[in-house]
Amino acid sequence: MIYFDNSATTKPFPEVIDSFVKVSAEYFGNPSSLHNFGGLAEKLLSQARSQAAKLLSVQQNEIYFTSGGTEGNNLAIKGAAFANNKSGRHLITTTIEHPSVREAIKQLESFGFDVTEVPVDINGRVNVKTIENEIREDTILVSVMHVNNEVGTIQPIREIGQLLKQYPKIKFHVDYVQGVGKVPLNINDCHIDFCTISAHKFHGMKGTGLLFVRDGVKINPLLNGGGQEKNIRSGTENVAGAVSLAKALRLIMEKQQKEFTHLNLISKQLREGLFKIEGVAVNTPETHAAPHIINFSIPHLKSEVFVHALEEKDIYVSTTSACSSKQKTISGTLSAMGMPEERAGSAIRLSLSYTNTVDEVNTVLTAIKQTIEELRKVMK
Amino acid sequence: MIYFDNSATTKPFPEVIDSFVKVSAEYFGNPSSLHNFGGLAEKLLSQARSQAAKLLSVQQNEIYFTSGGTEGNNLAIKGAAFANNKSGRHLITTTIEHPSVREAIKQLESFGFDVTEVPVDINGRVNVKTIENEIREDTILVSVMHVNNEVGTIQPIREIGQLLKQYPKIKFHVDYVQGVGKVPLNINDCHIDFCTISAHKFHGMKGTGLLFVRDGVKINPLLNGGGQEKNIRSGTENVAGAVSLAKALRLIMEKQQKEFTHLNLISKQLREGLFKIEGVAVNTPETHAAPHIINFSIPHLKSEVFVHALEEKDIYVSTTSACSSKQKTISGTLSAMGMPEERAGSAIRLSLSYTNTVDEVNTVLTAIKQTIEELRKVMK
Repeated sequence: MIYFDNSATTKPFPEVIDSFVKVSAEYFGNPSSLHNFGGLAEKLLSQARSQAAKLLSVQQNEIYFTSGGTEGNNLAIKGAAFANNKSGRHLITTTIEHPSVREAIKQLESFGFDVTEVPVDINGRVNVKTIENEIREDTILVSVMHVNNEVGTIQPIREIGQLLKQYPKIKFHVDYVQGVGKVPLNINDCHIDFCTISAHKFHGMKGTGLLFVRDGVKINPLLNGGGQEKNIRSGTENVAGAVSLAKALRLIMEKQQKEFTHLNLISKQLREGLFKIEGVAVNTPETHAAPHIINFSIPHLKSEVFVHALEEKDIYVSTTSACSSKQKTISGTLSAMGMPEERAGSAIRLSLSYTNTVDEVNTVLTAIKQTIEELRKVMK
Repeated sequence: MIYFDNSATTKPFPEVIDSFVKVSAEYFGNPSSLHNFGGLAEKLLSQARSQAAKLLSVQQNEIYFTSGGTEGNNLAIKGAAFANNKSGRHLITTTIEHPSVREAIKQLESFGFDVTEVPVDINGRVNVKTIENEIREDTILVSVMHVNNEVGTIQPIREIGQLLKQYPKIKFHVDYVQGVGKVPLNINDCHIDFCTISAHKFHGMKGTGLLFVRDGVKINPLLNGGGQEKNIRSGTENVAGAVSLAKALRLIMEKQQKEFTHLNLISKQLREGLFKIEGVAVNTPETHAAPHIINFSIPHLKSEVFVHALEEKDIYVSTTSACSSKQKTISGTLSAMGMPEERAGSAIRLSLSYTNTVDEVNTVLTAIKQTIEELRKVMK
C-alpha cells in the first residue's frame, strides 16, 4: 500500500498509540476528581499541556485541548465573535479556507455578523494589501489559514500578523492544521491570537486537537459545562488524547528537524516527475508552497475515476479535501484561484509524510503515467 | 485500590481499548476519503452506528457521534433552541441538571431565551405536574436528566414524555449519561427527541459519546464544517472512538442483563451498612434511585477532608460531581433538594460499577466507620 493522502489523515505513530493506551488503561481517573488518583491524571494533562506549549513556543496557559481541528476552528471563530461583538460585527476571511472555517463564519452571518471574503491570486495566495483594504471600524476578526489543504499554498501569515498588530481591536485566527510539522510557524512572531491544531494530521489520534488562545484574549466557550480548560472548553478531559497529542507533536517536530531534507527531496522528485507526464498540469505553485502537498489536474479525466484507478494499484490519493470529496468534484480552492472548471474538476491531491520514500514516489509516478494512458484508451 | 468513583469516570474495558487500538492502527483512513481505504473506515463507522442504534432500540440515522456528554448536551440544547427559535424562546429544565445542561442553557439566556427551572422534592425528583404548569405558548424545549449524577435519583422520564407528547411543538431532551447500563431507558416509549450518552461513564474511552436525535427533528449544528454526521456534527470522524463506544455499550448492556442482581446486591449491602454507621445520613432516596450511586453526608465533617482520608486507605470516592468537586464543596443537587448547608456541604458520593465486589463494599464500610472515628478524634 502506498498512502499519499496524508492531508486527509495520517497513520498514528506506534509510540503515540502506546501512550494513548497506557494512559487510558492505567491513569483513567477523572482529572477533576478531588482524590489523588484523579490527581495523577491531572498531572499528566498538565505535563501534556506544558510539552505542547514548549513545542509551539507559547505559554502553557495558552493551550486548550479540543476534539480536533473542526472544533478548534469553530471555537476560535464563534468564541471570538461573540466575545467581541460589542466592538463590532465584521469578519474578514479568504475564499480558500477549510469548510470548518468557512461554515463557522457562515453560521455567524445568520447571527448578524458581516463577512468579507478576500480573494486569492492564481497561486492561491492572499494579498496583505487586499486584507488591509477591507479593514473597517467594526472589524473584529481576521481568519486566514496557514497552509491551504488542497494545493499547499503558504499564506503570508507573518505579514498579516504585522498588519493586524496595528489594529489591537482585531483578533487574528490561523488554521494551522495542514502546516504542523511541515511548514514552520512562529505563533508569537506572527501575532496570532487563535491558532488551531489537529493531531490526526501529524500521526496523532483522531478526535484530539488543541487551540492556542493568546493569554488575555477574550473568547466565549462553545461547549459550556463543568468548567474544564479554564471554562473555555468544558467536558471531562481526554487525558490520553492530550498526552498522545503532545507526543505526536514532539515526534513530528523532531522529524521536521531531522528529516526535512528527505521530505523536500521526495517532494521535488514528485513535482519534477509530474511535469514530465504529458497532459498533467501542476496546480501547486512553485514558491510559497508546502513540501507535502502537490496538486495537479489531468484535464478531460474525471478526478474521481482517476482516484479509483490508482486505488486498483494500491495507491491512495485524493481529489479535493477529504471533507468535500464525496460532495462535489470541483475543487473550491482551484476555482477561487481562477482555474477553469475543466481543470478544477480534474484535480488530484498527493499529500506526503516523512514516512514516504523515493521508491514510492517512483512507483506513483509510473502508475500515474500508466493510468492516464489506460483511461485515455478506455475513453477513446 | 478500591474505585468507588464510577460516576466520575470508569476504567475502560480491555476489549474496548483493544478495539480502539486495532481501528486506530489498521483502519486509519479518513471515512470521508473517496478511495476504498477510507471506505473501510466508513464501513466500520457505519457498523458502529448501526450497533449502537440497535442496542438503544432506535434507528441508525438517529445516532450522531460526538466527543462526549458535554458536547452532546450542548449540541442538543443549543442546536434545538436555535433551530426552533421561530416557534418560541422558552425552555424548561430542572434545578439539578448537570453543569453541561445548566450552563448551556445559561448561555442561551444571553441570546434572549427565557428559562424556567422547575424545583425538585426532598428526594431530588421533579414533579410532572410542575413541568406541566410551566408550559407556555412559546415553550420549545424541556431538558430533564435521567439519573441524577450526585444522588442517583431517577426522574419520571416516561411520564414527562407522555405529557410532552401532547405538545408536538415542544422537544424533549434527556441527559442519559449516568443511566446507561444501570437504569433502563426506552427512548422511543419515553418520546425523547434528544438523548445524550457519554462512553467513559460505562467503561468506554474518554472523548467519545453520541447524541440521539429523533428522525425528522430539527437541530442546528454546533460545529460547522465538512458536513460529516449529516451536517449536524462536522469534523473528521473518530472512527476508533465510535467503534469502541459501540463495543462498550454492548458490554455494559450485557452486564446489565447478566449481572444486575450483583450490582443491586452490593448496592443494598452498601446502603444498609451506611445506615448502621452513627453520624451518617444517607441522601439517596429509597425509591426511584439508581443502584450505582449512593450519596450520604457526615454532618460536621468536611467532605473534602473525608475524601482525602479515604484515599489514604486506597479508596477513591467523591464529594459532588467530578466537574464541581474542585470549585465548591456544597452539593448543588442536595441544596436543590432542600438539604441544609451543613448536610449539603458534607456529602460523599459512592458510585459503583459491575466490577465492584462484596468484599470491596465491606472494606469501604469499615474504612468509612474508622475514618469518621479518626477524624472526630482529631477534631476534638
